[in-house]
Amino acid sequence: MSNSLANSSAPASRSIDLNVDAGEREDAAQMEEDRQLLASVSSANIACGYHAGNARVMRRTVEWCAELGVAVGAHPGLPDREGFGRRELAVAPAEVEADVLYQLGALQAIAKAAGVPLVHVKPHGALYHMASRRRDLAEAIVRAARAIDPGLAIVGPAASELLRAATAAGLRPVEEGFVDRAYLADGSLAPRSLSGAVHADESAAIGQALSIAERGEARALDGGVAIVKARTLCLHGDTPGAAAFAASLRRSLLERGYAIRPPR
Amino acid sequence: MSNSLANSSAPASRSIDLNVDAGEREDAAQMEEDRQLLASVSSANIACGYHAGNARVMRRTVEWCAELGVAVGAHPGLPDREGFGRRELAVAPAEVEADVLYQLGALQAIAKAAGVPLVHVKPHGALYHMASRRRDLAEAIVRAARAIDPGLAIVGPAASELLRAATAAGLRPVEEGFVDRAYLADGSLAPRSLSGAVHADESAAIGQALSIAERGEARALDGGVAIVKARTLCLHGDTPGAAAFAASLRRSLLERGYAIRPPR
Amino acid sequence: MSNSLANSSAPASRSIDLNVDAGEREDAAQMEEDRQLLASVSSANIACGYHAGNARVMRRTVEWCAELGVAVGAHPGLPDREGFGRRELAVAPAEVEADVLYQLGALQAIAKAAGVPLVHVKPHGALYHMASRRRDLAEAIVRAARAIDPGLAIVGPAASELLRAATAAGLRPVEEGFVDRAYLADGSLAPRSLSGAVHADESAAIGQALSIAERGEARALDGGVAIVKARTLCLHGDTPGAAAFAASLRRSLLERGYAIRPPR
Amino acid sequence: MSNSLANSSAPASRSIDLNVDAGEREDAAQMEEDRQLLASVSSANIACGYHAGNARVMRRTVEWCAELGVAVGAHPGLPDREGFGRRELAVAPAEVEADVLYQLGALQAIAKAAGVPLVHVKPHGALYHMASRRRDLAEAIVRAARAIDPGLAIVGPAASELLRAATAAGLRPVEEGFVDRAYLADGSLAPRSLSGAVHADESAAIGQALSIAERGEARALDGGVAIVKARTLCLHGDTPGAAAFAASLRRSLLERGYAIRPPR
Repeated sequence: MSNSLANSSAPASRSIDLNVDAGEREDAAQMEEDRQLLASVSSANIACGYHAGNARVMRRTVEWCAELGVAVGAHPGLPDREGFGRRELAVAPAEVEADVLYQLGALQAIAKAAGVPLVHVKPHGALYHMASRRRDLAEAIVRAARAIDPGLAIVGPAASELLRAATAAGLRPVEEGFVDRAYLADGSLAPRSLSGAVHADESAAIGQALSIAERGEARALDGGVAIVKARTLCLHGDTPGAAAFAASLRRSLLERGYAIRPPR
Repeated sequence: MSNSLANSSAPASRSIDLNVDAGEREDAAQMEEDRQLLASVSSANIACGYHAGNARVMRRTVEWCAELGVAVGAHPGLPDREGFGRRELAVAPAEVEADVLYQLGALQAIAKAAGVPLVHVKPHGALYHMASRRRDLAEAIVRAARAIDPGLAIVGPAASELLRAATAAGLRPVEEGFVDRAYLADGSLAPRSLSGAVHADESAAIGQALSIAERGEARALDGGVAIVKARTLCLHGDTPGAAAFAASLRRSLLERGYAIRPPR
Repeated sequence: MSNSLANSSAPASRSIDLNVDAGEREDAAQMEEDRQLLASVSSANIACGYHAGNARVMRRTVEWCAELGVAVGAHPGLPDREGFGRRELAVAPAEVEADVLYQLGALQAIAKAAGVPLVHVKPHGALYHMASRRRDLAEAIVRAARAIDPGLAIVGPAASELLRAATAAGLRPVEEGFVDRAYLADGSLAPRSLSGAVHADESAAIGQALSIAERGEARALDGGVAIVKARTLCLHGDTPGAAAFAASLRRSLLERGYAIRPPR
Repeated sequence: MSNSLANSSAPASRSIDLNVDAGEREDAAQMEEDRQLLASVSSANIACGYHAGNARVMRRTVEWCAELGVAVGAHPGLPDREGFGRRELAVAPAEVEADVLYQLGALQAIAKAAGVPLVHVKPHGALYHMASRRRDLAEAIVRAARAIDPGLAIVGPAASELLRAATAAGLRPVEEGFVDRAYLADGSLAPRSLSGAVHADESAAIGQALSIAERGEARALDGGVAIVKARTLCLHGDTPGAAAFAASLRRSLLERGYAIRPPR
């Protein structure tokens, strides 16, 4: 039974999207972890061969998404495999636009062959951060997405240049919150160097997810409350126990009456 | 003035396609050579980042094609940059299918952003040769092309498994002949190890092109005449003087009343 | 306490080498698995950036080998990351020689910076198989190794062209046996397509290891006994429980009075 | 007749080094251009497979250097093939150190197989610029070079962190000047955006080369005179006519009594 059926059998007055990065690992054992994780989410951000992944892995991941009713999204990155796309690179907007066109097109073709649409775009790693604060790069990504399909959703932080550029171009912006990372009172993510920046405890992470979903806020690591507007929650898949955590979070949200599905 | 205008202003009762591989080189001087060559042909086979090329080069090449009225085709190759896609690799059909989907999708997105369609697919190097004689790989390529667009043309040798698979799947087969390579009487290309296998002389190459276009045959290196059915003629772009030769060939064909354009 | 110390404190009249492929995986969790595995073996075959690995992973792996007293060996592969070096590629001997020089030199430099020598060379995947049966490729690999250091050991199957070429060139041949793969009576590995070709059971694998070490033979899957001459035993590291199995095998060998160390 | 013989037969009271980047291009026609250029210089900076080049091209280039008596140097770059190593990347010093070890080791092995030593290291593109101004990256490069061979020379701008780090570590610093780029009065290179920043005129470039060699200065684009201390002069090889220009410059220097050879 697919996630979609599960969701549709539970009529819900409210909904939230759970997204996870996928297709970033290539060996059989890891791909099996990816598949288990996909069973608990509603959206997948699939690596497109730049920072990670390749055509074969993309195809397998897309087919799992099709089986499980998970929305297929692109996770384009910088061409930095050694650094897993996490290192900033001095790219020009025209380079980013060409690179994103390339990656989105490649995934869209693979999705089409599997009979499912490409639904959203979420830049990866350093490209996500650069596009959040630089208008020129944000616009380059949005131009590429729009050229491919003006119906694509763009996923990013609520107050980012990326979502501003999406809105300006008529693409759907989707605000993203993080489940296992602590926030500061100003709404930014707590730097990993701070103690407590990552929620090691499952219940803390689930608590934050519910708080973001229900009230649009999270307890701030530096005291007080952070405003976290989010229609999609990002889970991390590369930690031990990720699939079990995703299943717990899914259950907690379903119990509170949430449908787990991509934003409309 | 674009090639299209030139062609349409010369009403022709007969036509031939000239194709050239493009986007396989990345430095400025070489890309300029590519541009000059494109000015004389009607179809370009654009490298898609596996054996050569990258998103930036693909985009530039597609834009030149759009300006010049040259049909944009994909030139997917094996993932062997060091060997320029010329070394056979023990790939499974499912791997080829995923790799071709990836490459075609990437180029199609770049073409779409430039406002032009993806028109044809011509595999590169070892993949071309393997798909000419192996049915399973030919079918994998055709499946990928068909999933993307059943209107795509498939370019290959006349009696190849590749064109048989295209025909069986309802895609348009386009038979290809070579201008600067000598044929044997059995219709195969003369191995490069034979003396005279490559036409060093421009007039010999042009003579062969006209002979193929007009009579579907070429003088055989081993005596007699080779049957060479071809609706598109392949020029090589990586030799000194390639652009000048292409211009000469184009003139010779126009003078004989040929329109130079992609097969309908 | 390093493996070396452990070995030297247990004076042994006989010895065997345990080797494992390492540095083929790049994320933190997997690298930790590699490290645990290294604690039980005496030789590591480190991927050199072609089929897998990169400079950073190589350096970390070499440093672990230095700490643990594990001999550093090169695991050069074909330039086929997508296929993990497991697909045969039509490489010329001169290409193999250059590619192996490149990979060995890169690893040797990293080893030198860590204060340890490069000890052996074991080709990876398709290159291992091609060099086992093709003399020209075997000689190309041996030429590259010899140019770098005539003291290098070459690891391969007992009756292979690879070891013949090593012997002919004056390099030390080291015969390799497999612990978890069943043999046929003719001494070849049972094809994976046969039932029982892989020892799923830990005790069967340990039994085979002891049988090879003590008597130079293994029970054949097709009946009778296979002659398996081996001075090094290959463990696989990419299966669940690999580190625990390696530790069990190590204990079994030590209990029987074996020193676990590289061949002299 | 090799360059070395030519030099040694012309006893000279003064000398200068001419260096050129090599092995950055892979097709036959371009490699032939490289070979012609090498015939006029005394040092080659050979790309090591990161920003450009590969094992086969490195080997061919090293063999040409061996034939021509040209000193073999490494030209390590950032892992950014798409950007030709010209885009800054947020690399950590430990990453740079591992990447430089890898590249130097690979080239050193290829040089050793050709019977010639690795003589110098000149970082490429963005890595050259980053190492010129950042002490931590300069030290990382120098640590890698020193681990491989404390006798290696390090090539960089006269007042750079790179040469300071080399000196501090006991490696030979070699100051570099540019022949075809105009300087500003403060000794820096004129930005390419300024008119006149690149000497299009051959005689201007030769004049600057002689001025740097003889007086350690160059006419400044913004008026006055720039101090340019240099023991090696960099020629660019990727422009049309590069080989002819190199031959002219070589002749001009020989006529003025310079030996053209690597710094001692």
